[in-house]
Amino acid sequence: MTGLISDLSILRYTPAGIPAVEFKLMHESTQNEAGAERQVACEVCCIALGDPAVALSTRMDGCRLKVKGFLAARNMRYRSSLVLHVTDYGE
Amino acid sequence: MTGLISDLSILRYTPAGIPAVEFKLMHESTQNEAGAERQVACEVCCIALGDPAVALSTRMDGCRLKVKGFLAARNMRYRSSLVLHVTDYGE
Repeated sequence: MTGLISDLSILRYTPAGIPAVEFKLMHESTQNEAGAERQVACEVCCIALGDPAVALSTRMDGCRLKVKGFLAARNMRYRSSLVLHVTDYGE
Repeated sequence: MTGLISDLSILRYTPAGIPAVEFKLMHESTQNEAGAERQVACEVCCIALGDPAVALSTRMDGCRLKVKGFLAARNMRYRSSLVLHVTDYGE
């Protein structure tokens, strides 16, 4: 998924000492659905842990980013509140 | 993404006459992040339009499903409320 970085947090460390950074990815694209093209936009809450977090923490809001990862619930109580865990990224 | 179907809606038609069905996908998996394996769970709101909708409307809650598609905001006001638009599916 691609988008522009927004609300980039400062680099923090989890209780286990793992670097972590959070940000939003402002995504816009054209997608094909039911035989028609449609404009798509969404704001995806992202978190990166470990090496990706250290690297991404140097970015600026407004930077374009392509990310790969997996969706997970923000917490076990609100399983439909989704966070994209970024495991790989590129320009 | 794979998961179990939940809250499958009845088949409806959009004002433009396109078949549509909504459901939740109860996802659980093991993912690798920052060099460690972790258990992941989330509930993804899904919508299918067109032929996929007609086919998926015959499924039952609790069925296992593998889906492909794109993330979009539920509406332009709440851009962080995400819906997975299913464009392809399998067992």
